[in-house]
Amino acid sequence: MKDYKNLLTALEVNLESHERLEESLRRAHEQYFLWQAARPQLMARFDASCHESHGARVAEIFEHRQKGGKSIGTFCIYVPDEIAIAAGVIPIPLCGGSAWAITHADKILPRDICPLIRSTFGMSISGTCPYKKLKDFAVGETTCDAKKKAWDLFGFKVLEVPQKKKSADASVWFAEVIEFKTMMEELSGVSITPLKLAESIRLMNHKRRVLQRISEYQKLPEPPISGLDALLVSQVALNQDINAFIADAHALAYELQHRVQTGEAAYKKRGPRILMAGSSSPLGYAKIHYIAESSGLRIVADESCTGSRYFRNLVDESHQDLDGMLKAIADRYFAIDCSCFSPNTERLDNIMKIIDEFQIQGVIHHILQYCHTYNIEARAIERALKKKGIPSLIIETDYSSEDEGQIRTRIEAFAEMIGK
Amino acid sequence: MKDYKNLLTALEVNLESHERLEESLRRAHEQYFLWQAARPQLMARFDASCHESHGARVAEIFEHRQKGGKSIGTFCIYVPDEIAIAAGVIPIPLCGGSAWAITHADKILPRDICPLIRSTFGMSISGTCPYKKLKDFAVGETTCDAKKKAWDLFGFKVLEVPQKKKSADASVWFAEVIEFKTMMEELSGVSITPLKLAESIRLMNHKRRVLQRISEYQKLPEPPISGLDALLVSQVALNQDINAFIADAHALAYELQHRVQTGEAAYKKRGPRILMAGSSSPLGYAKIHYIAESSGLRIVADESCTGSRYFRNLVDESHQDLDGMLKAIADRYFAIDCSCFSPNTERLDNIMKIIDEFQIQGVIHHILQYCHTYNIEARAIERALKKKGIPSLIIETDYSSEDEGQIRTRIEAFAEMIGK
Repeated sequence: MKDYKNLLTALEVNLESHERLEESLRRAHEQYFLWQAARPQLMARFDASCHESHGARVAEIFEHRQKGGKSIGTFCIYVPDEIAIAAGVIPIPLCGGSAWAITHADKILPRDICPLIRSTFGMSISGTCPYKKLKDFAVGETTCDAKKKAWDLFGFKVLEVPQKKKSADASVWFAEVIEFKTMMEELSGVSITPLKLAESIRLMNHKRRVLQRISEYQKLPEPPISGLDALLVSQVALNQDINAFIADAHALAYELQHRVQTGEAAYKKRGPRILMAGSSSPLGYAKIHYIAESSGLRIVADESCTGSRYFRNLVDESHQDLDGMLKAIADRYFAIDCSCFSPNTERLDNIMKIIDEFQIQGVIHHILQYCHTYNIEARAIERALKKKGIPSLIIETDYSSEDEGQIRTRIEAFAEMIGK
Repeated sequence: MKDYKNLLTALEVNLESHERLEESLRRAHEQYFLWQAARPQLMARFDASCHESHGARVAEIFEHRQKGGKSIGTFCIYVPDEIAIAAGVIPIPLCGGSAWAITHADKILPRDICPLIRSTFGMSISGTCPYKKLKDFAVGETTCDAKKKAWDLFGFKVLEVPQKKKSADASVWFAEVIEFKTMMEELSGVSITPLKLAESIRLMNHKRRVLQRISEYQKLPEPPISGLDALLVSQVALNQDINAFIADAHALAYELQHRVQTGEAAYKKRGPRILMAGSSSPLGYAKIHYIAESSGLRIVADESCTGSRYFRNLVDESHQDLDGMLKAIADRYFAIDCSCFSPNTERLDNIMKIIDEFQIQGVIHHILQYCHTYNIEARAIERALKKKGIPSLIIETDYSSEDEGQIRTRIEAFAEMIGK
């Protein structure tokens, strides 16, 4: 791997703590992914992209900015990438997945908020995040209390995601999307034309379609890709250059097709088919997926923000005018079934659909600690699943490794119960 | 005190656990309030109203319902009482303040959500809440993640409080207020006329004005009422019959005026003047106020929902038509400076105003555990206060008594620091 010390120094990154972070990410990656015996060969590309998230990807964005290009930090799949891309702005998802960074946030934030937020700010405050100086500003949203108030505390821009899905709420959201467009145009000095927006809509849909295609293979009785590797692909999707990602993901999809034809399965044993539900698993974190699959379960679907929630819905490509396109973008994002909504029947419907389509035998609700919305909603979903005869397991956890043994015991018992 | 066993039995209350609850509330009341040496005589009425919240008040609402009257459960000062009252519906604030009830909620809700919500549902699930069968339905709101999702889980009606204060948000909120009006009319079968609504607007404003008047006396160098007793008055305001409350509060205000004239102060010593900020303290809970005042601090202002946030703003009484009145109601509630808003500069402005008007020397941020919005916002306020030379103390706590010693030590150190 190339040495990026000079670049990191130019970005005011603390080299010593960055080295510790990289070491911790390397170890996590090795532990989580590399034990798997029958990975697609092309997963090596995604392993590399994961490592390059602190190297080549940083250099790419640095170069983009050196040429006068702009970039923003984002933390949620509600920020409409299409609009940023149409203005030539690179959106950089910055949700922290590093356990190493968490305690650093204790100086500025309460301890009892979710590890994702703490990791994000821990990376920043410890001078370890190479993207800190690689963005013009950060754009947060109002999907949960802790994020919303943390964005305020640090003066981020905030998009309001409403809490109901009535027509007045759709208007609020549409106004936010329009404001985001203005924000991107003002930042870049680029006027977003119908042509540019149509292009970025197609590009983002293209990215979603290839992720959908990979997910389709997981419906098979013998999936050619594991849930762990599908997660890694999704995680990389949020960091890598979009065109490079689409190319790699297409190549992977072809390999998966080939593996299906030649009967190469990702799993040695036909363990229970599991849906992973709940909180997201940002790059650097895959603890619950790892424990589950190394305990013999097969995660054939993941409905989280680092799973199908990211790529399920497409933007309607039929509009020619700017207003129509912007409305189509707003509609697409407003349809996301985040647990921030009241009520959120859409999510239950989507989960039931996944259960049928992917022949799910059990659901693991992965709840990042203090994520109240997914945690409480898990209880409603558990109740509905019970009626359908699908067992649920709710796991509350954080990024630390301390509870791994205990979680493994619970997951093994869950696997055994389903197996019976 | 009258015996309400038959009534409670009719309301399907578990008498045994209700007796344990009442004993716990009695002990808490005694510990928190009765140690004070120089209370206004009329506080005896509020002590009695506090005890009658599980007796005479229950009987009153029972009688109202026997006559065909309706009542609803509420949990937040965003539910517009004026509208319920105009339809003849009694709104019953049900936020739990009992430590005893908390663990009962563990069967149905995560443990790491705030004690207020857990206490509320603990009361209900343990069959201890006499109001459970005394309401037609419950009306929640979206002011925090845990409340919002808990209302959904148990099928409550939910009013959407938006997360920003832009004009589109004001429209969302106005639509919710109109929907609440329809809800109240449908429930009661009563059509809300301009005359009825004007009357309930005046009544609620009247209630707020008398609370404002009591609070005014706390501005004096020697307040005639303690922060603890002012809290008790506010807590009772949320339970007692509105007309009875206004009468008692007016009588108290006259006594306070008399005490000022005769030089009867509530405190023996001139301890530092404190603003209590942050989470609310529902009836049954006054732990931080108690520790602070029994440690020599004087809480002369409380900006929480069980403090001035409840009575600060009045509804504009100048409108004659229904639409104008409903808009005035919506505006009044939309101006509330809850920490659920992003940004929430209004709250900081209000706190700065209180600091000047009440000559505040220090601020205690009382944060109920896992209340992310007040917890994170406390850090922003602390920063602003520091610039003004006002020290802050952030206390995260729950309803248990386990941390009382530790909190007392911190508060005493805070008092000493201000005294210097």
